[in-house]
Amino acid sequence: MFVLVNLKTYPCDPVAVAEAAADVAADTDARVAVAPEATDLRRVATVLDGTAAEAFAQHVDPVEPGSNTGHTLAETVADAGATGTLCNHSERRLRLDRIDGAVAAAERVGLETVVCGNTPEQVAAAAALGPDAVAVEPPELIGTGTPVSAADPDIVEDAVAAVDAVDEDVSVFCGAGISTGEDVVAARDLGAEGVLLASGVAKADDPRAALADLVAPL
Amino acid sequence: MFVLVNLKTYPCDPVAVAEAAADVAADTDARVAVAPEATDLRRVATVLDGTAAEAFAQHVDPVEPGSNTGHTLAETVADAGATGTLCNHSERRLRLDRIDGAVAAAERVGLETVVCGNTPEQVAAAAALGPDAVAVEPPELIGTGTPVSAADPDIVEDAVAAVDAVDEDVSVFCGAGISTGEDVVAARDLGAEGVLLASGVAKADDPRAALADLVAPL
Amino acid sequence: MFVLVNLKTYPCDPVAVAEAAADVAADTDARVAVAPEATDLRRVATVLDGTAAEAFAQHVDPVEPGSNTGHTLAETVADAGATGTLCNHSERRLRLDRIDGAVAAAERVGLETVVCGNTPEQVAAAAALGPDAVAVEPPELIGTGTPVSAADPDIVEDAVAAVDAVDEDVSVFCGAGISTGEDVVAARDLGAEGVLLASGVAKADDPRAALADLVAPL
Amino acid sequence: MFVLVNLKTYPCDPVAVAEAAADVAADTDARVAVAPEATDLRRVATVLDGTAAEAFAQHVDPVEPGSNTGHTLAETVADAGATGTLCNHSERRLRLDRIDGAVAAAERVGLETVVCGNTPEQVAAAAALGPDAVAVEPPELIGTGTPVSAADPDIVEDAVAAVDAVDEDVSVFCGAGISTGEDVVAARDLGAEGVLLASGVAKADDPRAALADLVAPL
Repeated sequence: MFVLVNLKTYPCDPVAVAEAAADVAADTDARVAVAPEATDLRRVATVLDGTAAEAFAQHVDPVEPGSNTGHTLAETVADAGATGTLCNHSERRLRLDRIDGAVAAAERVGLETVVCGNTPEQVAAAAALGPDAVAVEPPELIGTGTPVSAADPDIVEDAVAAVDAVDEDVSVFCGAGISTGEDVVAARDLGAEGVLLASGVAKADDPRAALADLVAPL
Repeated sequence: MFVLVNLKTYPCDPVAVAEAAADVAADTDARVAVAPEATDLRRVATVLDGTAAEAFAQHVDPVEPGSNTGHTLAETVADAGATGTLCNHSERRLRLDRIDGAVAAAERVGLETVVCGNTPEQVAAAAALGPDAVAVEPPELIGTGTPVSAADPDIVEDAVAAVDAVDEDVSVFCGAGISTGEDVVAARDLGAEGVLLASGVAKADDPRAALADLVAPL
Repeated sequence: MFVLVNLKTYPCDPVAVAEAAADVAADTDARVAVAPEATDLRRVATVLDGTAAEAFAQHVDPVEPGSNTGHTLAETVADAGATGTLCNHSERRLRLDRIDGAVAAAERVGLETVVCGNTPEQVAAAAALGPDAVAVEPPELIGTGTPVSAADPDIVEDAVAAVDAVDEDVSVFCGAGISTGEDVVAARDLGAEGVLLASGVAKADDPRAALADLVAPL
Repeated sequence: MFVLVNLKTYPCDPVAVAEAAADVAADTDARVAVAPEATDLRRVATVLDGTAAEAFAQHVDPVEPGSNTGHTLAETVADAGATGTLCNHSERRLRLDRIDGAVAAAERVGLETVVCGNTPEQVAAAAALGPDAVAVEPPELIGTGTPVSAADPDIVEDAVAAVDAVDEDVSVFCGAGISTGEDVVAARDLGAEGVLLASGVAKADDPRAALADLVAPL
């Protein structure tokens, strides 16, 4: 099970979350990764270097080294120490051709890719572009604290079925409605191989305890 | 075989092209459709009403009736007499979630959908969203006059295979490199069920002759 | 005073609104214009041809005749009979360089331009691009029915001052919070030379009566 | 005079350029700043801390701390040690309202803002949003090596006049066609208070020598 924590642009301390992630990852079989802002990526990856936890980017652009201003280059993200990247998050939607280009850019430098989508259909579409994983995130659940397993369990099972029909090698993550270890288990029981969450850790009073709770039952 | 003529914003006479399409469609088994600008859609559809040819929109927005300014509403496109719409053309790329929304909007009012993409992977992704057809249009061939069958025949066959693996009910059109009836036959031989072309008709000195030539071997 | 009615993608009858606009315009010194969807523009302009009311587009793209799919070409809008166009409406925001290009495209074919913005600063910026008018539309007032003169009268006066400092020849319209003739007078008293409104007419049970009420005190 | 070096996503060593900038800035009255990718910003700013040179961001998003994935937050940029940011570069164009929001976000945390535009009209528009400076960058000159003073000297003078008419406190930079110290002097003679350049330094065999040459005549 993969627990991927998106720090968004929350006013949290990304280094402290990274340190907590390293500690928690040392004691679990689950993979744990932290995705800070690009500006914080290198120092988060430095903290995580040599630990069991990983750093992810929140986005990479479908560009090559060259004349691109204000873009996030996959090469630089990899050089900073990240092992993967989110793509097409609901707060950073991309054109279909640019998702294709971003996945190709990430692949070029060995970054894992997790492409987001709102619906089983959208993540199945994303799966056709050859990412490592997709994350289904029903927009109505994002940031609500409502468990996806309670609100809309079918969406995860439907996503798994739709993605399997396109490419069995693409993992499906549950990208919304995850706050507790119980939610992670429920997502796993629905067929998800990972969870993508944000506020449950980034806005927690004690991010370390929140992370520990998430992986406890795994 | 479906011959879909995109008039883009070319300075041609859309009514004259529509009249030619009606005449040519009367004498062939191929389906023929003309896609003018939204501003010209109603009069083109009026010319084509009761003929064997059809009117398509070049784009519809993923919106519902309501507070949307400067958008193309599927309901209005259908009311104008169109039978289908292009979507995600290389000159009007959309976010993945908005392609999903545009296909849903078109479906809501019974418009056929032809979703474009640059590569076999992108049209396979589009196919996962449930359109009627996809059109593969390698950008390097658009508007060149180079036949796709000469320049890159694999792209059509690969697109057909990739789309079939996702959803066998989605047709594949060849969306670039079509100028002559010979090109249409070559596309059909590669597995395409339609062709999407523009300048070959819209910029022809004699659009009627150009259209007649396209369907002659079918 | 200019009363510009944006029909958005509301499920109203654009021809009926146009006929009402023609009647109302015949009896007032105010200019009256109706802005339907592109797909309805030609028939609205045809109804208004020879009357005292005018047809506007909701948007034109910063393109020239040529290879542009799913775009609204200024030439076609003018050919359809429109006398002007909205630009950068809050529901159809554009990049700064594209507003510049859209104003240039409209000017190329003699269309009047009304460029929208949220704040006095944004409409002052728009004024630097040389449109005929700008419309200030505080987003928090759009579609609320709350009169701008009650909620935020300073915004109109500030917009007039900011625009005058950039280019005295650019008119300022009040683009939100207009439902009644009283609101139009209040906007005029604050320095606006026009009003841009939508739901007050397009969603009225009796659009003709709503329009008549708007111009009655002028 | 302000010499602002945009490293884009060029495959240069941003730390080496920063060290060169620090050295060169120590020996000139000109301000010197380096704008790396967001992922490299903190280490570039760390190198420049306490030196005469500065770090700039290439872009900040018009967002506040909170639920924004894949965005560049002004607070984080400032925390990383940058003193300013580019905005609306020709390779990262923004909607007018988002330029307004990005300038506001930068101002919120004390970052200087340099907003780019293609034409005198566009930079005058940008000036109305209250940035510290604007940079006029005729797209046809970007990356060509052709000096703006040779190709199109009027554009700088026109930009200065247009911006002065909107807000005299906004500086005008010359954003294209700068490769040598001679070009910088020519830009200054045309009224520019700064230059924005990229390949002349970032792609130079010896970035230190290139920078030294740029400021030598100042």
